[in-house]
Formats: sequence, structure tokens, C-alpha cells
Amino acid sequence: MYQQSAGQIQLQEGPMAPMKVYGWVVSPWMARVLVALEEAGAEYEVVPMSRSGGDHRRPEHLARNPFGEIPVLEDGDLTLYQSRAIARYIFRKYKPEFLGLGEGGSLEESAMVDVWLDVEAHQHEAAVRPILWHCIINKFEGRDRDQGVVDESVRKLEKVLGVYEARLSGSRYLAGDRISLADLSHFSNMRYFMATEYAGVVDAYPHVKAWWEALLARPTVQKVMAGMPPDFGFGSGNIP
Amino acid sequence: MYQQSAGQIQLQEGPMAPMKVYGWVVSPWMARVLVALEEAGAEYEVVPMSRSGGDHRRPEHLARNPFGEIPVLEDGDLTLYQSRAIARYIFRKYKPEFLGLGEGGSLEESAMVDVWLDVEAHQHEAAVRPILWHCIINKFEGRDRDQGVVDESVRKLEKVLGVYEARLSGSRYLAGDRISLADLSHFSNMRYFMATEYAGVVDAYPHVKAWWEALLARPTVQKVMAGMPPDFGFGSGNIP
Repeated sequence: MYQQSAGQIQLQEGPMAPMKVYGWVVSPWMARVLVALEEAGAEYEVVPMSRSGGDHRRPEHLARNPFGEIPVLEDGDLTLYQSRAIARYIFRKYKPEFLGLGEGGSLEESAMVDVWLDVEAHQHEAAVRPILWHCIINKFEGRDRDQGVVDESVRKLEKVLGVYEARLSGSRYLAGDRISLADLSHFSNMRYFMATEYAGVVDAYPHVKAWWEALLARPTVQKVMAGMPPDFGFGSGNIP
Repeated sequence: MYQQSAGQIQLQEGPMAPMKVYGWVVSPWMARVLVALEEAGAEYEVVPMSRSGGDHRRPEHLARNPFGEIPVLEDGDLTLYQSRAIARYIFRKYKPEFLGLGEGGSLEESAMVDVWLDVEAHQHEAAVRPILWHCIINKFEGRDRDQGVVDESVRKLEKVLGVYEARLSGSRYLAGDRISLADLSHFSNMRYFMATEYAGVVDAYPHVKAWWEALLARPTVQKVMAGMPPDFGFGSGNIP
């Protein structure tokens, strides 16, 4: 299944067991990995865990990920954590074009994927996460919303989206004219942000809005989103 | 100069101009890129900028990086930002073995580089940065130290270093038995952390300490460190 074109990689021989992903599917970090698996067309199974039940703090999970976080990917003897690193692995193994590598890739294209994946991690997520915590999660966990933090994060996000708007005016996707992990990596945080009262912020950025709608139109994204209620499951009582 | 073994990469023909790195050399983000350039043996020149003078907010810099941050790398027509993405580019171009790719690399090794690079970004840096701000920078910028934040960050760092200790008990470097970007990426934040009164925290983790000393022993690291005074230049008045 792996394309040699992505580099000099040693293939493991032997029967193919599906990969295992440990975690709860409402998690944005989990969703990042699930979308990558779906886009890669990889065989996998989800091993569901309970956050409210503290499964991530149990010794058997700490043996998989000593930081006690999810998701964890198991592929044969290989155990990986950190959602973006897992997604890179999945695409390097099955669809290196999503990393700007392999068929038609270039040093420049892979660099642009890396740049925009780091922009997602260090600019976009940094602005969006406090909004998700204060506007969605806090009310279910009995904490007050700090409106000052929300306002500051929305202002920060507007600046970030302004940069995205300029970028997406010149290319269809963040790393260039074809979709990459850099785009897909935004899905999970954006999905929840678009469930907040601040979703309309995106209307001021038409190229960003079109890009988001193109992501939403992907069957892989829709499949993963089906497991992600807009309130993280708190309202329905389906708390993982 | 580029090794074909790292993947299908289109080489640009033409005269080689040295790469340009924009920024101030005391910056941990800048140092991450400079160490990568030194390890890669790449030709480069630093284009010095002034943080206190606001060079990063000027239109000519915003044209290079719309987020108004440093470092920026220019390689011919290619302009890159986000320090880890730049470092990946440098190694993919010149020394893919630092990414677990190329000669002797494997899908597993490159995955472990990605995992530990994300651990550095999301676990290690998250713990260390508040310590650097409150223990070094605040006193020069007229802000009070919040000892509660420092104490909490030191506790967080101790947990992180506990995981590193276990990892480095089983392999010489974070991604395996050879050095990679995952190790080098720690240098710049660690350099400043080791200049704080909390440096002794590392003594409780002998494998971490040996790993840090192995990093410090590298001539490339020593060369870059010569431009990084322990107080970020504040004490000497050499504020960039």
C-alpha cells in the first residue's frame, strides 16, 4: 500500500492488522487523526476511551502515552502520540501527496505544508482554543466564562483569518493548489468554533469561508463530524 | 547538494546564493533555525533586525511574514516562517537523516522524530516558556514575576522531564540512537532555562542531563550560543 516515491522507507512484511486509535471521538485531537485515516483510506479501528472515567490516567494508557493524552495510534509494534505527528505518519505511509511529498511533490511544496501546519498549531489553535473552552466547555463544567479572554481571542483570530484570507486569495488551499494536511488539520478546531456564537466572524473573509465549505464538503470530514456533536456531547449527556 | 534519497524533489538549477535568515540572534526561535543551518553545513547570512526598534512590524517584514514574527528564511524565491517548519526544510534539503529520512531512515524513525518534535513544541516549550518570561524577561521589562505561574510551570516541567528521563534511558536521543531535529529543537529554550535559578531541576534526571551535555558539546551549538547572552542581552544593554 505504501508508495516508494515518498523516500527510502523499509517496508515491514507480514499480515496487515488494522491500525488502532485510542481515544474519544469528540476530541479535536482525535478528529485530526480520524480525518487523516479516512483520507488515507487506511484500515483502522477506534478503541473508545472515557475521559470522564479517567481512562487516560490508567497505567495501561500511560504505557501507550506517558503524557496521559489521546489520541494514540498503534500500527503493529509502533505506538505514536501527538495528533499532528500521527497524521504525518499516516500520510507518509499511505498518501505522501498530502504532505507535499511523493508523486508531483517538491521541496517547496512540502515546506509550505510544514509552514501552514505550524501556523495552524501556533497561530490558529492558539486563538481558537480559549474560545472553545470559554464558550462551550465551561458552562458544562461549572466554570464561569471569562468574556475578556473570549474577546481578546476573537480579536487574535480575526488577525489570523486576515492572513489566511490573503493567502487563500492567491491559492486554493493553504500550501498551494492541492489540499494537504495543513488544511485538514484545521477541521477539528474549526468545527467547534463554527458551533459557537462567533461563527459569523468567518463571513468577513470570503476566501476563508469558501475554503472551510470545501473542507466540510469532503465525505471523509462528514463521516468524522458525525461523531462530533457541537457541544462535545455535554448537552446530550453523551459525555465520553 | 541535495540528496535524492529523501524523496522525489525537483532541484532548481542556477547559481547558488546563500540563504538569508531575518531576525535577532538572541531569540530562541531564531536559534532553532541557526543550529539547523549550522548542522546542515548550509551557506547562509543573518540579516539582523531590531525587536526593540519594531523592525518586525514594518511593511517590508510583514511582506515576508504576515504574522510579523521572526525568523524568516529566504532561499531564492522561497520565503518561509515558523521556526520548526524552516528547520524541517533545511534538513529535508541538506541532511534528511536529521528527520529520520534519507540514507538509513525509515518510516518508523521519521515518525519518532515527528512525535518528539511535537512533544518539544506542545509539552516542553509549554512548560519552559512561562519560566523564561517570569524569571528572566519580566524584570527587564518592568513587569512583576508571578511566582505562582513559575511554580506551576516548574512542576509541569518536572513531569515532562520524567517522561524524557524514561525515554532517554532506552535510547541515546529522543527519536532513537542518532541525533535528530527533535533533540536540536530543544536547545534554544533549554539554553535560557539553564540560565535561570531552576537549572538544578535537571540534576534529578541523569539521562536528561547527559543528553543536554551532549547537545552542548556540539560545535554548532556552541557557535550559535555565543550570540545568546543568558539574559537575552537585557543586562548588557545589547537589546536587539
